[in-house]
Amino acid sequence: MVSAGSLGGVNDLYRRILRLRAIRDFQPDQLSDDDLAAILEAARWTGSSKNQQEWAFVVVQDREQKERLCRAGHYTKPIHNAPTAIAIVEEPAGNEFDSGRLAQNIMLAADAVGVASCPITLHHRDVAAEVLGLGEGQRCRYAVALGYAAPGAGPRRIGGRKPLDELVHRERY
Amino acid sequence: MVSAGSLGGVNDLYRRILRLRAIRDFQPDQLSDDDLAAILEAARWTGSSKNQQEWAFVVVQDREQKERLCRAGHYTKPIHNAPTAIAIVEEPAGNEFDSGRLAQNIMLAADAVGVASCPITLHHRDVAAEVLGLGEGQRCRYAVALGYAAPGAGPRRIGGRKPLDELVHRERY
Repeated sequence: MVSAGSLGGVNDLYRRILRLRAIRDFQPDQLSDDDLAAILEAARWTGSSKNQQEWAFVVVQDREQKERLCRAGHYTKPIHNAPTAIAIVEEPAGNEFDSGRLAQNIMLAADAVGVASCPITLHHRDVAAEVLGLGEGQRCRYAVALGYAAPGAGPRRIGGRKPLDELVHRERY
Repeated sequence: MVSAGSLGGVNDLYRRILRLRAIRDFQPDQLSDDDLAAILEAARWTGSSKNQQEWAFVVVQDREQKERLCRAGHYTKPIHNAPTAIAIVEEPAGNEFDSGRLAQNIMLAADAVGVASCPITLHHRDVAAEVLGLGEGQRCRYAVALGYAAPGAGPRRIGGRKPLDELVHRERY
């Protein structure tokens, strides 16, 4: 298989895609305005089904509001640890596939400007909807925790991946 | 807001995230083995909920098999036009959010190695499942068409985006 290193200098993009990992521990410093703006701009430009952009981004930085949002999921410690969370709201006509594309773009754009991130599942949609003040038909099932990585913060040790020969099929499964 | 150009030379990654667009017209040439391998390797390394990797990738290149897959969706012309499609299979415990993250990584990794792409919705899951030979509980709702961009191929004109002040909320929606 191709190793990222074999692709030469032009492929900083490719290398960083391969290297992206969720980080769960952050420095207390808030994101700079420029870094947050860059991340939101990349979010905005994410592609979506029929370019419908049926989403909204709620930037949560208030400590108490973050704690309330933490109650919407089972494994939300990274939101507690992070200075910023972006809650991904699906408008009524939105879908989770597009939310996933969005989250990946947010994480990669964050990485590009030196910001670490972790996607978070909000299992209790009713709690998330109440905390975020969502209306009829709007849903928030996912958020991304964002901050500058704490010294020594790294991905979990269980971070390996299945080999390609388990994952790839030709023509039919 | 931040423009990609203001971020300097190190941010090839950031610029390419912002610039990524779905392309629907391709040259007839098949992907090189190296390019396909690089794309699949990036797919493999995509993050997923609890690192469960509940997915599989079916590489479809046979002309007749591509045509059969086209019948699984409403707007599948890019699969007809493309030499390769990767059908994203959700294993029974998988979810569409992770499939979205995967599709975005595939598209960005493809872009990094000079390959154009278009995500495709397969509206008729029963047709996709039959064409791909899926088992109980496995689903295929999305694919990515891949190839070298046809001369002059570009994104659709309706490719603008909503302004950030419509999309971004602070603390609550």
